[in-house]
Amino acid sequence: MTGNPMAKGRHVVRRSIDRAPLDVVDGLAPIGTASVHEAIGKRGYLGAELRPIQTGARIAGNAVTVLIHPGDNIMIHAAIEVCTDGDILVVGTTTPNLPSPHGVFGDLLATSLQAHGVRGLVIDTGVRDTHDLREMEFPVWSRFVSCQGPAKSNPGSVNVPITIGGVIINPGDVICADDDGVVVVPRDEAEWALDRSLARLDSEAATRDRLTGGELSVDFYGLREQLTEMGVEYE
Amino acid sequence: MTGNPMAKGRHVVRRSIDRAPLDVVDGLAPIGTASVHEAIGKRGYLGAELRPIQTGARIAGNAVTVLIHPGDNIMIHAAIEVCTDGDILVVGTTTPNLPSPHGVFGDLLATSLQAHGVRGLVIDTGVRDTHDLREMEFPVWSRFVSCQGPAKSNPGSVNVPITIGGVIINPGDVICADDDGVVVVPRDEAEWALDRSLARLDSEAATRDRLTGGELSVDFYGLREQLTEMGVEYE
Amino acid sequence: MTGNPMAKGRHVVRRSIDRAPLDVVDGLAPIGTASVHEAIGKRGYLGAELRPIQTGARIAGNAVTVLIHPGDNIMIHAAIEVCTDGDILVVGTTTPNLPSPHGVFGDLLATSLQAHGVRGLVIDTGVRDTHDLREMEFPVWSRFVSCQGPAKSNPGSVNVPITIGGVIINPGDVICADDDGVVVVPRDEAEWALDRSLARLDSEAATRDRLTGGELSVDFYGLREQLTEMGVEYE
Amino acid sequence: MTGNPMAKGRHVVRRSIDRAPLDVVDGLAPIGTASVHEAIGKRGYLGAELRPIQTGARIAGNAVTVLIHPGDNIMIHAAIEVCTDGDILVVGTTTPNLPSPHGVFGDLLATSLQAHGVRGLVIDTGVRDTHDLREMEFPVWSRFVSCQGPAKSNPGSVNVPITIGGVIINPGDVICADDDGVVVVPRDEAEWALDRSLARLDSEAATRDRLTGGELSVDFYGLREQLTEMGVEYE
Amino acid sequence: MTGNPMAKGRHVVRRSIDRAPLDVVDGLAPIGTASVHEAIGKRGYLGAELRPIQTGARIAGNAVTVLIHPGDNIMIHAAIEVCTDGDILVVGTTTPNLPSPHGVFGDLLATSLQAHGVRGLVIDTGVRDTHDLREMEFPVWSRFVSCQGPAKSNPGSVNVPITIGGVIINPGDVICADDDGVVVVPRDEAEWALDRSLARLDSEAATRDRLTGGELSVDFYGLREQLTEMGVEYE
Amino acid sequence: MTGNPMAKGRHVVRRSIDRAPLDVVDGLAPIGTASVHEAIGKRGYLGAELRPIQTGARIAGNAVTVLIHPGDNIMIHAAIEVCTDGDILVVGTTTPNLPSPHGVFGDLLATSLQAHGVRGLVIDTGVRDTHDLREMEFPVWSRFVSCQGPAKSNPGSVNVPITIGGVIINPGDVICADDDGVVVVPRDEAEWALDRSLARLDSEAATRDRLTGGELSVDFYGLREQLTEMGVEYE
Repeated sequence: MTGNPMAKGRHVVRRSIDRAPLDVVDGLAPIGTASVHEAIGKRGYLGAELRPIQTGARIAGNAVTVLIHPGDNIMIHAAIEVCTDGDILVVGTTTPNLPSPHGVFGDLLATSLQAHGVRGLVIDTGVRDTHDLREMEFPVWSRFVSCQGPAKSNPGSVNVPITIGGVIINPGDVICADDDGVVVVPRDEAEWALDRSLARLDSEAATRDRLTGGELSVDFYGLREQLTEMGVEYE
Repeated sequence: MTGNPMAKGRHVVRRSIDRAPLDVVDGLAPIGTASVHEAIGKRGYLGAELRPIQTGARIAGNAVTVLIHPGDNIMIHAAIEVCTDGDILVVGTTTPNLPSPHGVFGDLLATSLQAHGVRGLVIDTGVRDTHDLREMEFPVWSRFVSCQGPAKSNPGSVNVPITIGGVIINPGDVICADDDGVVVVPRDEAEWALDRSLARLDSEAATRDRLTGGELSVDFYGLREQLTEMGVEYE
Repeated sequence: MTGNPMAKGRHVVRRSIDRAPLDVVDGLAPIGTASVHEAIGKRGYLGAELRPIQTGARIAGNAVTVLIHPGDNIMIHAAIEVCTDGDILVVGTTTPNLPSPHGVFGDLLATSLQAHGVRGLVIDTGVRDTHDLREMEFPVWSRFVSCQGPAKSNPGSVNVPITIGGVIINPGDVICADDDGVVVVPRDEAEWALDRSLARLDSEAATRDRLTGGELSVDFYGLREQLTEMGVEYE
Repeated sequence: MTGNPMAKGRHVVRRSIDRAPLDVVDGLAPIGTASVHEAIGKRGYLGAELRPIQTGARIAGNAVTVLIHPGDNIMIHAAIEVCTDGDILVVGTTTPNLPSPHGVFGDLLATSLQAHGVRGLVIDTGVRDTHDLREMEFPVWSRFVSCQGPAKSNPGSVNVPITIGGVIINPGDVICADDDGVVVVPRDEAEWALDRSLARLDSEAATRDRLTGGELSVDFYGLREQLTEMGVEYE
Repeated sequence: MTGNPMAKGRHVVRRSIDRAPLDVVDGLAPIGTASVHEAIGKRGYLGAELRPIQTGARIAGNAVTVLIHPGDNIMIHAAIEVCTDGDILVVGTTTPNLPSPHGVFGDLLATSLQAHGVRGLVIDTGVRDTHDLREMEFPVWSRFVSCQGPAKSNPGSVNVPITIGGVIINPGDVICADDDGVVVVPRDEAEWALDRSLARLDSEAATRDRLTGGELSVDFYGLREQLTEMGVEYE
Repeated sequence: MTGNPMAKGRHVVRRSIDRAPLDVVDGLAPIGTASVHEAIGKRGYLGAELRPIQTGARIAGNAVTVLIHPGDNIMIHAAIEVCTDGDILVVGTTTPNLPSPHGVFGDLLATSLQAHGVRGLVIDTGVRDTHDLREMEFPVWSRFVSCQGPAKSNPGSVNVPITIGGVIINPGDVICADDDGVVVVPRDEAEWALDRSLARLDSEAATRDRLTGGELSVDFYGLREQLTEMGVEYE
């Protein structure tokens, strides 16, 4: 079927999805979310509400998406078997406009995901066992840290389009995450995104050298004329 | 490829969209968002952040979607000419995870929309001239009321998919709005939604009669057994 | 009675509770929450998050308390039969620190409560059908207005101590509610509260007369000396 | 100049301030805050957090400023005697970054202010007795409605510069307030602001006529070229 | 009746309270709040708003409760002499629904508490001197970090029931706190809670071994049937 | 100088400002913001919303102020050349009441500021490249961390009065910042502030010694009498 797998309220688990090539994903991993976000036209940022529970992690992976009822983690359990090496689990809720701070994810689920090659978790609700998650070096970006545990009694879906922070994430899209947050790159733009990001890194390196030497960006970006045109006066 | 009109950061105005039949839209209008939302499987609610600036309005219409840069209303101006009788303008921002309380809409834009047959506005940012908007009987659901005026200098798109409250709205979807908020019905589910909503209204009317007579819902919904199974004890 | 009915996680419905005498309750009703709150020592206010969905209602009643799982209204159904004339239904959640904006209450439940003599609703989560609730003149104080409907699958309790806004509400306590919010008066302090509130009203009436005539409160409250002691200088 | 009256933590009541001429103030009153705000260069808006407790009021007046300790209203009592006809009381707190929802203002203070010719209240904290305030037709813009009453034991100042919503308000500045919020006009710009606002109203009236007739703003504002330059494509 | 020590607005310091046995408390300390919270029936979690100022601390202790006026720390000073080895100070405010971000606690109070054997602080308002507190290894869970200092002029109580995050904390209850937040265990359920928590840890260890080996929780928890019953379809 | 450089909406860059003497600034640096804030009369704290992106930094410097349009960093570029050794860049927005979480500052701007002797950044909006900023040891206090990049197309000002958290910051004022937040000291009170802060440190050191020995602050501050006067009873 071509249409929307969730039409008229269906709940589905899609076992098979297309993913971006892992060499492109691995190329995006070390670049940094701010640069990727700029490179693809200031799109795909999931928002300042989503914070890492650790410092210093920088990863990229293919999205396996999970749509859960707020406060219920049964679909996260259901999602594990469709994950493979290089994936990142991305969990949204059926009520994205009603933040639910339940801690629906902890060290046991992380153990299982690690055993299946998953690189990390992005989740639009709460997690717990954060001390253990950091010890396991399983990186997590979440909206809350919360002891409040989940139910396992409400259906949802795996590998359907979801939204986090108002941004649409399709299964197989590339997720980039670091200390600045999470950026999603559409699967069929991944290679283009990598090329543009690398070009941007080169340009930034050249700029950094000039700035280190004391040159002024207001000069070499040609901003002085623009300031004058906008009516900014020097005193 | 028909694909995503916004791929790789393009900005577009799509003049022509498919809409739901106006008789179906008009059938949905008086039902009430809570009933429509239940009828289609508890989907499509744009969230408690979106509040009416008036009391008592209840409308439905076909969505003309506008994607604006936060704090900029040039694309709202651009959208007016693609609107027709029975439409509702639905405005999201390119940074849905960064609430922008600028008042990008006021009585002049409302005057123009009314002149083109538009029934109301749903907007994920701020509006102003609220006194005049109420006097004009142009209904508005917004996230903020704010004096802070807009720029007209950043591009966006008209009639592309947008998200508000994490919910995806496609151009031509049916918008239902009243004192409880805003619900979106996918265009190709509109007729199905109307049928189910009307059936639900009938059932609720029958229930209301029994409750008015003093009958207990815990009895006629058969909830007592469920309470016992869940371990609730009576004292 | 020996102790906490909810100890070790029990779920109970207590059919029988002590209430304050209705004449005392009816005496408190017209006074206004701000005056009652002051009279009893600035206690019992449930907080600015709890807002009326209507303007101008001022009621008092005996609390029937309901403790619900967030987003689930089965216990509200269960509570109706233990209500009687002069009661106000007061609904808290098992996760008071995690605001849940589900709309778990609508016009059908209100119809049933009205049929059993209940005067209004105070609820620490969302309601819907607000247009109908206002038409029915069933007053409601809630944290949210939300279309998002409830489940009926998680246990809770009726007539156990609950908290809203961090304030403890025991079944049978007196609830006062108006445009300023909601104040709870412990059941065994109701008569004392009424006496003190009436005395306060008398004193305020006398003050109002003097202020209308242009007298300065800074004089007849003797605040000038205090200002000087605190180091306030006149220029 | 004698410098900052509050330097090194002093508390002062300044009895005498310069005000804008009442005919200029009265000229600004009916214009509407959105238009005034635009006319003076999109400045002076106190923010979307400050909401009217009534609908339809539109006033202007000279600011008598009060700086209070959060939750304490002794300085509001002290301010009354320095007020005169045409004033608006504007109350900020010493901790503007710590919103305090205490209800430090009610009907008694309003009675006294009305007796001294004050036109309304703008306050960056909570008020109570809102039902009475509406009955008295004493307009109020506040951050909260709250029963929680004030202390009278911490010093502050009257007629010193304060900030609300990060905007600096000097005593004698002109305050404009309506359903859209509150805008402050620096005292020595009041006449200039009135001229520009009236010019703006004229221009808006002409625009409104054309829009009512169905003309497109995208045409007569010349926005089509700009859209093209920004890369917006029509489909 | 021994009753409520705070009835009719009294302020008290209760010197003598019952505590849980220290060996039970010390047994709970290393378990982790998420496991304790689950073990006692998903109760007692103080909410995601309460955050540790340090990383990696995990403690348990008997609660000495303090009820303060927001922004005032005189009662914290008063509480020190009733503390003993193994206690945790737990500070709530008289306005739990009005978050007060004053920094009412700093390194001097921590020095004194450490000298009296207190293991840490849980506080529903702000703290300061956080750099020093971390250096002293005095663990703190608070709602805010804030420079804004306290007054010492408003009465409160010590060792009375308080609420934080809507959860009731009685003096002598057991407090467990770690990176996930704070959980309170009723004093007379402490031993039961320890037994259940240890059983849970055993069960989790067994589960972890199976998950590490790649087994799927969806299989050994028997969730597949439940998914089918809930209407989840595999594609 | 005669008046407000921004009157009637002007945009200016002031190249030359008065600063506090660097030896006074350097004297304030190690003291800690909580102590400085207390010493100057509990003034100047920019609020709990402003958080360090690093742990352990403690700096002081002279403020170069920048007023930016929300989401636009062109004025930060313009500000660099007016900075000198010992400065701290302090960035507010023209809409202080509309928090804008754009990440308008990153490692390139930090590189340039470090090259010009600037000690750190205080910014009332978002930053990005936080991993790099920590590696560079360029300390930052911001309201948000956000990938969402800036525009460079809206004018603002450099070295004009700004507000953050409602507190007025003038160019040349002294900024103190550490793990507890940010405090501003008016330039012409800097020396007085240093004297008072040092005196306070001495007094605190003496207190700390007594508390370490187990003495009770309730005794040596003489609080017992005050508790009795306020009606606190011991049980």
